[in-house]
Amino acid sequence: MAHAFPFSAIVGQEEMKTAILIAAIDPSIGGVLVLGDRGTGKSTAVRALAALLPAIKAVVGCRYGCDPQDPTIRCPDCARLREGKAPKSHSIPVPVVDLPLGATEDRVVGALDLERALSQGVKAFEPGLLAQANRGFLYIDEVNLLEDHLVDLLIDVAASGENVVEREGLSVRHPARFVLVGSGNPEEGELRPQLLDRFGLSVEVKTPDQLAERVEVVRRRDAFERDGEAFVTAWKKEDERIRRRLLAARTRLAQVDLTETARERAATLCMALGTDGLRGDLTLMRAARALAAWEGDAAVGDTHLRRIAAPALRHRLRRNPLDNSGSSARVERAVAELLGP
Amino acid sequence: MAHAFPFSAIVGQEEMKTAILIAAIDPSIGGVLVLGDRGTGKSTAVRALAALLPAIKAVVGCRYGCDPQDPTIRCPDCARLREGKAPKSHSIPVPVVDLPLGATEDRVVGALDLERALSQGVKAFEPGLLAQANRGFLYIDEVNLLEDHLVDLLIDVAASGENVVEREGLSVRHPARFVLVGSGNPEEGELRPQLLDRFGLSVEVKTPDQLAERVEVVRRRDAFERDGEAFVTAWKKEDERIRRRLLAARTRLAQVDLTETARERAATLCMALGTDGLRGDLTLMRAARALAAWEGDAAVGDTHLRRIAAPALRHRLRRNPLDNSGSSARVERAVAELLGP
Amino acid sequence: MAHAFPFSAIVGQEEMKTAILIAAIDPSIGGVLVLGDRGTGKSTAVRALAALLPAIKAVVGCRYGCDPQDPTIRCPDCARLREGKAPKSHSIPVPVVDLPLGATEDRVVGALDLERALSQGVKAFEPGLLAQANRGFLYIDEVNLLEDHLVDLLIDVAASGENVVEREGLSVRHPARFVLVGSGNPEEGELRPQLLDRFGLSVEVKTPDQLAERVEVVRRRDAFERDGEAFVTAWKKEDERIRRRLLAARTRLAQVDLTETARERAATLCMALGTDGLRGDLTLMRAARALAAWEGDAAVGDTHLRRIAAPALRHRLRRNPLDNSGSSARVERAVAELLGP
Amino acid sequence: MAHAFPFSAIVGQEEMKTAILIAAIDPSIGGVLVLGDRGTGKSTAVRALAALLPAIKAVVGCRYGCDPQDPTIRCPDCARLREGKAPKSHSIPVPVVDLPLGATEDRVVGALDLERALSQGVKAFEPGLLAQANRGFLYIDEVNLLEDHLVDLLIDVAASGENVVEREGLSVRHPARFVLVGSGNPEEGELRPQLLDRFGLSVEVKTPDQLAERVEVVRRRDAFERDGEAFVTAWKKEDERIRRRLLAARTRLAQVDLTETARERAATLCMALGTDGLRGDLTLMRAARALAAWEGDAAVGDTHLRRIAAPALRHRLRRNPLDNSGSSARVERAVAELLGP
Amino acid sequence: MAHAFPFSAIVGQEEMKTAILIAAIDPSIGGVLVLGDRGTGKSTAVRALAALLPAIKAVVGCRYGCDPQDPTIRCPDCARLREGKAPKSHSIPVPVVDLPLGATEDRVVGALDLERALSQGVKAFEPGLLAQANRGFLYIDEVNLLEDHLVDLLIDVAASGENVVEREGLSVRHPARFVLVGSGNPEEGELRPQLLDRFGLSVEVKTPDQLAERVEVVRRRDAFERDGEAFVTAWKKEDERIRRRLLAARTRLAQVDLTETARERAATLCMALGTDGLRGDLTLMRAARALAAWEGDAAVGDTHLRRIAAPALRHRLRRNPLDNSGSSARVERAVAELLGP
Amino acid sequence: MAHAFPFSAIVGQEEMKTAILIAAIDPSIGGVLVLGDRGTGKSTAVRALAALLPAIKAVVGCRYGCDPQDPTIRCPDCARLREGKAPKSHSIPVPVVDLPLGATEDRVVGALDLERALSQGVKAFEPGLLAQANRGFLYIDEVNLLEDHLVDLLIDVAASGENVVEREGLSVRHPARFVLVGSGNPEEGELRPQLLDRFGLSVEVKTPDQLAERVEVVRRRDAFERDGEAFVTAWKKEDERIRRRLLAARTRLAQVDLTETARERAATLCMALGTDGLRGDLTLMRAARALAAWEGDAAVGDTHLRRIAAPALRHRLRRNPLDNSGSSARVERAVAELLGP
Repeated sequence: MAHAFPFSAIVGQEEMKTAILIAAIDPSIGGVLVLGDRGTGKSTAVRALAALLPAIKAVVGCRYGCDPQDPTIRCPDCARLREGKAPKSHSIPVPVVDLPLGATEDRVVGALDLERALSQGVKAFEPGLLAQANRGFLYIDEVNLLEDHLVDLLIDVAASGENVVEREGLSVRHPARFVLVGSGNPEEGELRPQLLDRFGLSVEVKTPDQLAERVEVVRRRDAFERDGEAFVTAWKKEDERIRRRLLAARTRLAQVDLTETARERAATLCMALGTDGLRGDLTLMRAARALAAWEGDAAVGDTHLRRIAAPALRHRLRRNPLDNSGSSARVERAVAELLGP
Repeated sequence: MAHAFPFSAIVGQEEMKTAILIAAIDPSIGGVLVLGDRGTGKSTAVRALAALLPAIKAVVGCRYGCDPQDPTIRCPDCARLREGKAPKSHSIPVPVVDLPLGATEDRVVGALDLERALSQGVKAFEPGLLAQANRGFLYIDEVNLLEDHLVDLLIDVAASGENVVEREGLSVRHPARFVLVGSGNPEEGELRPQLLDRFGLSVEVKTPDQLAERVEVVRRRDAFERDGEAFVTAWKKEDERIRRRLLAARTRLAQVDLTETARERAATLCMALGTDGLRGDLTLMRAARALAAWEGDAAVGDTHLRRIAAPALRHRLRRNPLDNSGSSARVERAVAELLGP
Repeated sequence: MAHAFPFSAIVGQEEMKTAILIAAIDPSIGGVLVLGDRGTGKSTAVRALAALLPAIKAVVGCRYGCDPQDPTIRCPDCARLREGKAPKSHSIPVPVVDLPLGATEDRVVGALDLERALSQGVKAFEPGLLAQANRGFLYIDEVNLLEDHLVDLLIDVAASGENVVEREGLSVRHPARFVLVGSGNPEEGELRPQLLDRFGLSVEVKTPDQLAERVEVVRRRDAFERDGEAFVTAWKKEDERIRRRLLAARTRLAQVDLTETARERAATLCMALGTDGLRGDLTLMRAARALAAWEGDAAVGDTHLRRIAAPALRHRLRRNPLDNSGSSARVERAVAELLGP
Repeated sequence: MAHAFPFSAIVGQEEMKTAILIAAIDPSIGGVLVLGDRGTGKSTAVRALAALLPAIKAVVGCRYGCDPQDPTIRCPDCARLREGKAPKSHSIPVPVVDLPLGATEDRVVGALDLERALSQGVKAFEPGLLAQANRGFLYIDEVNLLEDHLVDLLIDVAASGENVVEREGLSVRHPARFVLVGSGNPEEGELRPQLLDRFGLSVEVKTPDQLAERVEVVRRRDAFERDGEAFVTAWKKEDERIRRRLLAARTRLAQVDLTETARERAATLCMALGTDGLRGDLTLMRAARALAAWEGDAAVGDTHLRRIAAPALRHRLRRNPLDNSGSSARVERAVAELLGP
Repeated sequence: MAHAFPFSAIVGQEEMKTAILIAAIDPSIGGVLVLGDRGTGKSTAVRALAALLPAIKAVVGCRYGCDPQDPTIRCPDCARLREGKAPKSHSIPVPVVDLPLGATEDRVVGALDLERALSQGVKAFEPGLLAQANRGFLYIDEVNLLEDHLVDLLIDVAASGENVVEREGLSVRHPARFVLVGSGNPEEGELRPQLLDRFGLSVEVKTPDQLAERVEVVRRRDAFERDGEAFVTAWKKEDERIRRRLLAARTRLAQVDLTETARERAATLCMALGTDGLRGDLTLMRAARALAAWEGDAAVGDTHLRRIAAPALRHRLRRNPLDNSGSSARVERAVAELLGP
Repeated sequence: MAHAFPFSAIVGQEEMKTAILIAAIDPSIGGVLVLGDRGTGKSTAVRALAALLPAIKAVVGCRYGCDPQDPTIRCPDCARLREGKAPKSHSIPVPVVDLPLGATEDRVVGALDLERALSQGVKAFEPGLLAQANRGFLYIDEVNLLEDHLVDLLIDVAASGENVVEREGLSVRHPARFVLVGSGNPEEGELRPQLLDRFGLSVEVKTPDQLAERVEVVRRRDAFERDGEAFVTAWKKEDERIRRRLLAARTRLAQVDLTETARERAATLCMALGTDGLRGDLTLMRAARALAAWEGDAAVGDTHLRRIAAPALRHRLRRNPLDNSGSSARVERAVAELLGP
């Protein structure tokens, strides 16, 4: 609807932009959480990314948007469509699904198709937002205002990549692999550690404190709202440059070398910080690999670990009663000790 | 229904009247919140404004009142109506929609059209108050008595200009751009900072403390209620004068010069006051521009910033534990330091 | 149903009886709240008044009882009935509607007419108690036991004189102008200031502390319950006398002179007492005028202000931490200072 | 169902038995509340009374059991049945209706008749327990476990003698005059003063503290449960004697002289005890009159007042912080001071 | 379903087994409450008893299992079945009904028969678990986890022996006499005194503290679960012996002599312990009589009182702030003082 | 769906793997609870086991998967299918049922089959997850987030092996014997002792603290997610070896000798630790027997008790205020004292 603000026209906020790009290069990293004040352009950035992403191939008629190349997927629709023949495929934009406040559980997980139940007397499943978001992005603005039971559901589905529905006499199971992108304002309500842990990367945004930057942000925003078409045209070329680089990074990703040394450094860093479980190790390793792919480097090196350690780990630290410094500072100190300044 | 009290017959309350006019000149400023004692004529002023506004052009048959000139809008109705041909248009009054206490969520956001579902077996969307308010005003009396989940919804929709409905098996998205006008009594319940931030301007009204003014207000009210028709006729000319000036200001708005100096002064003022995010900067700038247009000035100057700073910023300040003076006083002091007294 | 206790047979309780009569003379005063112990005849007085009131003219077939003489009213029924022709009218008793505890919101505000919805498949509005009470009295016994959301609704409707219904897919708006009469026992639960403010007058009733009065009250009650018919007959003439005086006062009301001095005295009194907003000023002025009409006086004088100040203002005072005397005493002291003893 | 324990076979508990008889002689006294330990035969006594009461005349076909002799009653059924002709009448037992825990509001107040609504498409009222109890007794065991909103409803209906139903699109009003009989255990939950006040008389029962009495109670209970028929037969004559005396007392009631002195003594006693309102005066007077009728006395004297003062007033006292003695003791002391020991 | 563990194979737990047998001999005693740790075989014992009980005669076609010999019973089914003719009867096992956690109120008390309502349009009652349990046992495992409103209902029905249903437009009354058997773990939630009082007897079970007993319990359990059929066969004879003794005791019950002395001792004991009401007296007397019948004794003697006093009274004591010893110890001490050691 | 991570490829976590295998050898042990940090592969292990289990024989057409060899089972389906003839049987995989968060009670316990109710007007039961899990595994991820009433239901059913449904007018009883497998994070909410006690074994998993192990876990996980098919193929042989050993252990189980000494040692250990009830004794004995079968030993010896004591008992200890050491340490100390180090 209308125009999206161009990704390349966002002033500053480098950490946020890098994190979002990396999550787009390797979706298995597990999404991005953007924390910060109101009015700092959090949702602008996410919506801007959607316009950058290239199309994907999907099975025609499959409401879960399954990949025609992937033989391991057997969603309820594909089970029917693929009976003994190759499925037809078509191009669709990468889904970027909004989870609005006030969404009811039936629309999120899917529900009984009332129209067919009443008119034809059959009990059919009507997929919900989790189905729409399969293979794409699920964006939750104000994630800390989400109702608790929806948060539990999302954590569960995001962890397993499947949506298991057992309600209203329905028993359905379908793929639901998506990149979770959330924004929130920590002042409006704490986020539960389990939800934090589910996001691959977390970044913090602040109101800019330089006069020039403030004026520039307001000027671009005002220009965009006055004549969206002209503004988008002006930034089109720059956006195209980023899109090409993103695609190249994806292609390169499988070739990036993850040396034994890099693996050990990542694990050592997590042990030093005392992160629970191994999700920190896995995320740090993958994010560093994606960053190397973005930068065009052949192997993961200390530079990549150093740059991505804070977004990958800062939301996984336990509170240390003897160390009052913030999470970001603790990650940076550990990085400095291990990798040198 | 019956007569509205004439805008020009309102005694005193200059700040409130100016704020409402400015929000009508540039709707992107984001609405007005009127705070104050009961019985001070808060809702009278809002309802009086409705009678002043000129008609707008809308697509015939579109339940969202879309603008026939705007090609970027694709609401569900227009998508159907505009297929391959120019839509018909007609004049409609600017919508001024009341959100009554006790309104249910289904009437606010819209819901399944039960009548068609039961009689024709189809799942159609019946637009709600947010659809009716598109391109107009949404008025909430006693905004602090509104249920929390409705407040969350309104904030969300007011921020995005879209109403995204995911409920009862429906999945609809339609434009919902409106000026939010609210009145409230802070003694009956605090307003959440997020809701405050969503209003462009805020004004405070007080019971008049001059005997003559009190007697005059009561006299006009009594006269109006005894013979509404005669009273409205008596003030008609004065109201017409204001309507013409309002239209002129709208036309002039795009020509008002917003100098680099004015932009920097607005940003500097916000930085000095420590407002979160950049919504303060943007609002101050736009409100000053609209005020200049109202006054017939060619460029935004310090005078405009000085007059409009308090309504634009006073509700965005953080509590400062070292400075007990009220929000209005803090804004005025900062203005005085920056722009001179 | 059965007989009502005659108004004229009520022993003592002069303040309560005067307040109820005055509210019946000028309904724009906004109703009466009777506070006091259980068993003091609060509801008896209200129900007795109903028997005194003369009939009114209403549009035949209009479920809102609209006035055929009033061209400004356009309720949904009249809009249909008055198409191009003068409506038929008939006489109906002034409605006195009870709001029973346990009344559901759908019966109070009106709701979807299920019978027509199921049988004819149309979505019609079935008016509720607020529609029935239009142009009459809405009586709430035990107003402090009413559920909060109903209180909010009533305040809203009583303030605007309209019932705006946005629920169950219905969108209806109809006149609902009524005199709110409530009784309550402050010991069973505080009344919110907003509800207090909505009542024009408030009176306090106490258990009589004179032996003779107690015995007389019990004697009349016992006689009435043993043979209602005989009792009513005995007091018929006295009731008739009051009815005639009430009608005369209504006719005289428009001629009563409200001098500039009286207006200023009313405003000065309110300022001295620090009542919020101007509802106090307006009510005091109107109640004094109605009292003058009742007494047959040509103009409002200090006597009228002095007698009616306590019922009109005592429930609008703020708590004054430096002045522990009760509300009634504070009003009386201010009256004495301003108007002399 | 099965046999009721004979009223005359109840051992001891004289105060309780007298109170129940008096409430049966003059139903306008307003019912009895029996308070005390579990297992003291509270409900036995109430159910035993039911077997004693003589039949009443009622209109054939009227679901509210209206009295064919009473021309003032116009219930919805009689309105239909009495059109232009005298109603047929028949004898029915005095209704004694149990209000079971778990009764739903729709069964208590009445509700839409779903069977007719579904089969014939008409919106008819199906009367509830309040209709069944009209002209009889409504018995609530464990009255302190009743849900608050049902308590409010019962208080309201018991006070007005009418059931006003405004729900589910129904608007019905029918007579509901009944004697409220409740039993409760104050240890399981306090009774609200408003509910207490609504009961005419209150009595306290205790576990007997005499060995012989305990053994006798247990013996009779055991005998009754082993062979109910034989037990009832054995006590039949004694029960018959009580029934005749009860009927005689009812006839005599209207002739009992209530002297001015007695009226003043009753009022003086209530003033001395500071009971709220005049319900105490009225109840004491009526209960003394009924007691005189029961005893066969021609006029109310001090003896009657002295015996019935505690049951009539003890539940209407305010807590006196300076007087720790129980309610019963306070009533007795006041009686002794006023009437002599 | 499958085999029940044989009653005679239960190791130890003599107090519990005696209490259950006594409740089966005289159901008017009012059930058994078994309190104790998890895993001590509480529910095993109750389910084992069911297999021991002899069949009863019931009216064919009566869903309440009414006794064809009892002319006083008039359940809704028998009222229809017995019209002018003797009902047919057949043998049925004594009902032992489980009240599962999560049972809904409609299934417990009975409800509208939806199937008939929808297909035939008639409003019929579908009996619930209380109807099924009539004349048998109602077993509630984990009675302290039962929802409060179900507890209230059960107490009410168990006290009156009738189920009075007033809901969903139904008005039904049917016999519901059952022995309430409950098990609970006091550590998981207190039992309300009213529920405790409703159980005739209460016993406490503990984890055995003798090695040999523990090993034997586990051995028998393991053997039973490996080959239920063989295990049951091995204990069949012993179970048969108990069944015959139980029947003999029932027959003998009416002949057991309850001497005046025994009655007085029972009452004296209850007075000494200060139990509320007379339910303790009645239960103790009856339980001693049943025990005498079980033991084959002709009259109730001190031995019987002494053995059964603790189960009959321990759950009816008030907390004594001056006596910290447990309930069982207090009963035993009072027994020793009264009856000698 | 897709591939399961091979059981044999799980790095470390020996205690967890042994406990899961033992619960699979003897399902009467009662399931496994896996407690520990997020991200430690808890659910991976459970899902991996499912792929190892051999098929079972079930009655064709029975929705409860009953064993055709077991004559004692009479589920509602088999009652119909086995009428006078031997049921047909087929092979089905051992059910491993997920209980997703958000599952509604109707889907867990089963409910009215709405489709048949509406189309055919019959009241049929539609089995739920408890029916599906019969004879298999019920897996609950995040068991401490499960709603309390579902926990109560599961405890009840797991204890009795039957699902008793009394709701929506249904009255059904069917076998529901399953191994309960749960995982949870104690930091997110305590588990109730009753739920703990219901699990046969409990194990604790921790984040590995050896660098090599961490790196290896992450490496295998990364490899599996990149090419699941190749990874599974590589570990197929090793998984097959475990499957054969599991089947052999099941066959051997009935022959393992449980000596009197072993029985007494198990009981002595439980008495020393003060576990409530005898569930600890029974579980320890059975788990030791299953471990002996797994190890191929002919009799249960101290080695088996020693290895399995902690998982069998640690979750059954009471808090000992004088002994702060953790549950595992207390079990180990008691084992050392009794069986030697």
